[in-house]
Amino acid sequence: MKKPIDASLCQQRAQYLWFSPLTTRWMDNDIYGHINNAHYYSYFDTIANTYLIRECGLNIQRDAVVAFVVQSQCTYLSPLVFPQTLDCGFRVNHIGNSSVTYGLALFQQHAEKASAYGSFTHVFVERESDRPHPIPDTIRQGLERVYFTSPS
Amino acid sequence: MKKPIDASLCQQRAQYLWFSPLTTRWMDNDIYGHINNAHYYSYFDTIANTYLIRECGLNIQRDAVVAFVVQSQCTYLSPLVFPQTLDCGFRVNHIGNSSVTYGLALFQQHAEKASAYGSFTHVFVERESDRPHPIPDTIRQGLERVYFTSPS
Amino acid sequence: MKKPIDASLCQQRAQYLWFSPLTTRWMDNDIYGHINNAHYYSYFDTIANTYLIRECGLNIQRDAVVAFVVQSQCTYLSPLVFPQTLDCGFRVNHIGNSSVTYGLALFQQHAEKASAYGSFTHVFVERESDRPHPIPDTIRQGLERVYFTSPS
Amino acid sequence: MKKPIDASLCQQRAQYLWFSPLTTRWMDNDIYGHINNAHYYSYFDTIANTYLIRECGLNIQRDAVVAFVVQSQCTYLSPLVFPQTLDCGFRVNHIGNSSVTYGLALFQQHAEKASAYGSFTHVFVERESDRPHPIPDTIRQGLERVYFTSPS
Repeated sequence: MKKPIDASLCQQRAQYLWFSPLTTRWMDNDIYGHINNAHYYSYFDTIANTYLIRECGLNIQRDAVVAFVVQSQCTYLSPLVFPQTLDCGFRVNHIGNSSVTYGLALFQQHAEKASAYGSFTHVFVERESDRPHPIPDTIRQGLERVYFTSPS
Repeated sequence: MKKPIDASLCQQRAQYLWFSPLTTRWMDNDIYGHINNAHYYSYFDTIANTYLIRECGLNIQRDAVVAFVVQSQCTYLSPLVFPQTLDCGFRVNHIGNSSVTYGLALFQQHAEKASAYGSFTHVFVERESDRPHPIPDTIRQGLERVYFTSPS
Repeated sequence: MKKPIDASLCQQRAQYLWFSPLTTRWMDNDIYGHINNAHYYSYFDTIANTYLIRECGLNIQRDAVVAFVVQSQCTYLSPLVFPQTLDCGFRVNHIGNSSVTYGLALFQQHAEKASAYGSFTHVFVERESDRPHPIPDTIRQGLERVYFTSPS
Repeated sequence: MKKPIDASLCQQRAQYLWFSPLTTRWMDNDIYGHINNAHYYSYFDTIANTYLIRECGLNIQRDAVVAFVVQSQCTYLSPLVFPQTLDCGFRVNHIGNSSVTYGLALFQQHAEKASAYGSFTHVFVERESDRPHPIPDTIRQGLERVYFTSPS
């Protein structure tokens, strides 16, 4: 396990390298009137898979490798509510042989500070055997384009 | 119960009066690779509530009346899949004293023919007692602006 | 389209032929404190697929045929809330060559009267081509065991 | 932030102090045939809130304090699939003045080793102001009954 990236490097819009809009839904709000914490993870895997499909050529119906989530986490800084469209920020925090860890954050539109940020790790496995498989080259190249280099 | 609107009046983009985009999510796809049928209803109540909040002034946190769903239905014409952004079409099919029935349809972007269409009925009730309450005037006015008059 | 079954034949526990428990979830409650209408459909397709898998031998990972939802509807009689375990009642309302329509209802534990009831139609199709396919014999036999014959 | 509990203390059924069954749903499975990672968090907040409501007297409709999630994480050890009923294990890892961190794990029925484990932190706040509020005494007493003391 790599050392986690410091929280101060996760909360600003400028610290993310790719963005995608996300429309919230009526049912995302829970009984307390805020978006339920579990939905944040559905936003996170939506943006990561959107990047893999659109920018890395992943074919989720046919490719011989698929990506499984092995670890995820999220820090909630301020509540979000439906209705609004969010901006999801995306980057790669770490790339290994068969795994990749993404950094993600949710922003209200035009906000510079994130409402929540988190990370999750995909392990690429063979679709038929579930055995780990090196990240295919074209996907690796796509992931490297959004690799986050922390300022030193 | 009013006579349902004929299916031929539900499948074309031109038959809807207000539209809102909706981003699909990774988890919307089920094991067969298509968006699960239940999510269509979460799209439908998202667009209806978005209209009520943005165009009719409904305050879902504070208003003395809330809207409960008493009936819903959907016809699925062709599969939809993540990732894509959908256009949701919206209109009012019928307005009563305390209830309103919406017509809704989901379109792929730039498609004229719906991938699915349906309807659901909201009954307005007092938040504290759950007893039916006449539709408030400002909400009624907003709903009448998207009332669908079928061609004769 | 077959004539729908009369509502009076859908609201009693004794009118259903197979039951399965279902645990509600925190996120099922919406901002108004009741289970969101869309989740009812996820309960419905959970019980129908559980029946198909457990009682009819459907293999959702491997079988050459899969079942797509083409129409669904639900009538909501009284609100349901988390936390509680529901009983889902199930039966077959109609069987055709490649399609089957289920009748379903949700009951609070020990309640005789349903809190909601509905139906949905599965069309069996070839997994690779999406073309309609006759219901396989072993599945048809399983479905016929819960076929609802209305009293005359 | 307290030091996290070591992973070796999170993976065994005997390390949890309260259990609740949870029925999986058709839509929990994603396109790869496994339960989507985000649903694990909906299982986690379901069991924690069930404990708060049933064992600690929390009234989610009326109480002056509500609990917000400020941090969550999950480690996925082996895939889970619908249909099956899971056992959710629950305990309290840490109690502060206004916050509590739960430990949770998901077990296949009769399994001693978890398929996934995680934690999340609730901060109790005043419903009207969103300001942190000390954990009410009756809730604190309930939480202390499932406080996990790691072996030394």
